[in-house]
Amino acid sequence: MTYEPLKGTRILDLTAVVVGPAATWRLGQYGAEVIKVENPEGDLMRGLGGLSPTGQQAGAYLHLNRGKQNICLNLKSPGAAEVMARLVAWADVIVANMRPQALARLGLDGATIRAKHPEKIYCLLTGYGSEGPYGGFPTYDSVVQGAVGLPGLTLARDGAPRFVPLLVCDHVVGEIAAGAIMAALLNRARTGQGVTLEIPMFETMATLVLQEHLAAQSFDPPVGPYGDQRLLSPFNQPLETQDGFIAVTINTDPQVRAFLTATDRGHLIADPRFASVAARAVHVKEWFEVRGTPLTQKTSAEWLALFRAADIAAMPVHTIETLRHDPHLEAVGLMQPEDHPTEGRTTVLRSSILADGAPLPLRTPSAGKGADTATVLADLGYSAAEVQALLDQGAAASA
Amino acid sequence: MTYEPLKGTRILDLTAVVVGPAATWRLGQYGAEVIKVENPEGDLMRGLGGLSPTGQQAGAYLHLNRGKQNICLNLKSPGAAEVMARLVAWADVIVANMRPQALARLGLDGATIRAKHPEKIYCLLTGYGSEGPYGGFPTYDSVVQGAVGLPGLTLARDGAPRFVPLLVCDHVVGEIAAGAIMAALLNRARTGQGVTLEIPMFETMATLVLQEHLAAQSFDPPVGPYGDQRLLSPFNQPLETQDGFIAVTINTDPQVRAFLTATDRGHLIADPRFASVAARAVHVKEWFEVRGTPLTQKTSAEWLALFRAADIAAMPVHTIETLRHDPHLEAVGLMQPEDHPTEGRTTVLRSSILADGAPLPLRTPSAGKGADTATVLADLGYSAAEVQALLDQGAAASA
Repeated sequence: MTYEPLKGTRILDLTAVVVGPAATWRLGQYGAEVIKVENPEGDLMRGLGGLSPTGQQAGAYLHLNRGKQNICLNLKSPGAAEVMARLVAWADVIVANMRPQALARLGLDGATIRAKHPEKIYCLLTGYGSEGPYGGFPTYDSVVQGAVGLPGLTLARDGAPRFVPLLVCDHVVGEIAAGAIMAALLNRARTGQGVTLEIPMFETMATLVLQEHLAAQSFDPPVGPYGDQRLLSPFNQPLETQDGFIAVTINTDPQVRAFLTATDRGHLIADPRFASVAARAVHVKEWFEVRGTPLTQKTSAEWLALFRAADIAAMPVHTIETLRHDPHLEAVGLMQPEDHPTEGRTTVLRSSILADGAPLPLRTPSAGKGADTATVLADLGYSAAEVQALLDQGAAASA
Repeated sequence: MTYEPLKGTRILDLTAVVVGPAATWRLGQYGAEVIKVENPEGDLMRGLGGLSPTGQQAGAYLHLNRGKQNICLNLKSPGAAEVMARLVAWADVIVANMRPQALARLGLDGATIRAKHPEKIYCLLTGYGSEGPYGGFPTYDSVVQGAVGLPGLTLARDGAPRFVPLLVCDHVVGEIAAGAIMAALLNRARTGQGVTLEIPMFETMATLVLQEHLAAQSFDPPVGPYGDQRLLSPFNQPLETQDGFIAVTINTDPQVRAFLTATDRGHLIADPRFASVAARAVHVKEWFEVRGTPLTQKTSAEWLALFRAADIAAMPVHTIETLRHDPHLEAVGLMQPEDHPTEGRTTVLRSSILADGAPLPLRTPSAGKGADTATVLADLGYSAAEVQALLDQGAAASA
């Protein structure tokens, strides 16, 4: 039987770019009905994310907007305001990542909506908590990365401030938002109450960074410096082999002994600095120098075979090209071909989450801007003549 | 009123290190009752995460294990097996990140538990999907980072393969697991059915990486190279100023015009290569060279003031030290002092998620190993004499 845990849950999606679309993509994957409202200029990500056959479905847009119906509305027009009122009434959940000022001007802020519909769940994704001094500032993923210190950590470790080459704040906060919305749905099922959620990217990512990197400064008086000294070791890098790089991690005492044996450094097993988790925490600098020593004596494949035989966690360092053709991903079928309504043959990603052994259903391909305008308006009770009038006024647009 | 959306939900937590504890920490933050089972050697993270006053509560352990009761059991002993049977019966959800082989030996795998209790939600976090050729391989965050190509991306961009200085795979997959569990709770509320979930770290992180970096190769025939060319530009880095680094992002046409004006390059506004989102996607290399030019003419503070006046997203690049004292985080009170039962005065992180304007409750401090053994056993119906017998046999241990 198809596993659709959010079947029947209705999400009104007022998000664009990445963090919001990542949240509603995940809710859609669980079977929620998602209606995405797009303005006539379109979601920035359609073009910003890179090239596509039509110029309207950059890869990142294509993958993050599966499972959503798409209605195009000019939110500033009076006709669209009436459509939005019906969509709000329809929805269980309203999600937005516009700035609070813009939402308030449109009457689509949490206070306005929940004054009329206290049972609704309203989730606002902000850059910075609206009650703090940065409230209302614009932001993007890389600005949050800077603000929470990710490039500051590479500066300390490698001598240069570097962004993570992934929109990591958008993904993490998007998943947290999807979770917070499901928690609110559980709360409503139990109590009948709605809620207004705000999830600020800065505070949320700062929490994850500080959970790891307050470290010894979590205590008063502190028992050591800021930072997880393992992650900040200049030797905490993929290991060079004769023909590439591999990632290896050894944490427990048996793993450490197996690693030292496999790399012909068995004499270090008796070294008291490296003999236990506690000893290695004290001598973390020296230990990471040992475990970070290049392994250029053998090829990556030779090392991986040795480490696997010794039950040590190790993998090749993939590029995107080799990741696409990874034998495990090919065997489990993570990537699949699909014919897209406007972009021709595409590669899509099935759910990585397995329920009773099966991936969640694939859901529908990403829609063109306004692809479902007529259908959604009809479902909201507009007659064919009324739909035409909205299109003629410019309140709505069709693909 | 206190917002506890998972109030009354019971989580049996068989996780250790980071990915599992991150998931159950989040569920606890939503008000779930979490009982963490720890073996006599203790969660590796207690010491691996760094120094602490007692050597038992490294910062990462302290922050990721709030809101959990702790029972210490020697799972291989017959007495503990009987305790586990009662804990499984008590729980709504069982979460584990041990390897499948180890769980099966203990009779704590999903198949065994759900054969007896089909209404339970069982969530297994694996490194690699158990149906694929890497199924059962050990892993840690940095090995997953390597396998999904994060250091491969910095190699392409910066010339050196680098790990992200954050346990980013653990955090992301932990949040996704918390979400998947809440989806399963919603499903059970609606249908009465339990489910066995498997969430493999490799496939899950590969999905997020490929969503962004399949890019133009999402299409057949491809319309360009692999990779988000913006993120992979060597110029996609924090910008050097007279006295430090700042993070700045400009994506829309008005932002680009404001940025070029503010940085005295107004003559480029008319350049057709940079005049629209679509044009900048085609000329992404040249555009990132322009936007990546160092800004050493002024200080960070001067640039930030200019950019804020122009409504451009920009922030200083924090270190952990400066992040801790960030004025916005201080104003909203993200970090707070708390007296810990064993570690003295600590700094704790309140929830970054706001519900009706208020953070979620702080919950209880992280517990010592076995701190709640006696209480939990009593709650499961064991008499004082029976508890003593379990302790005497070595089936259970107390802090």
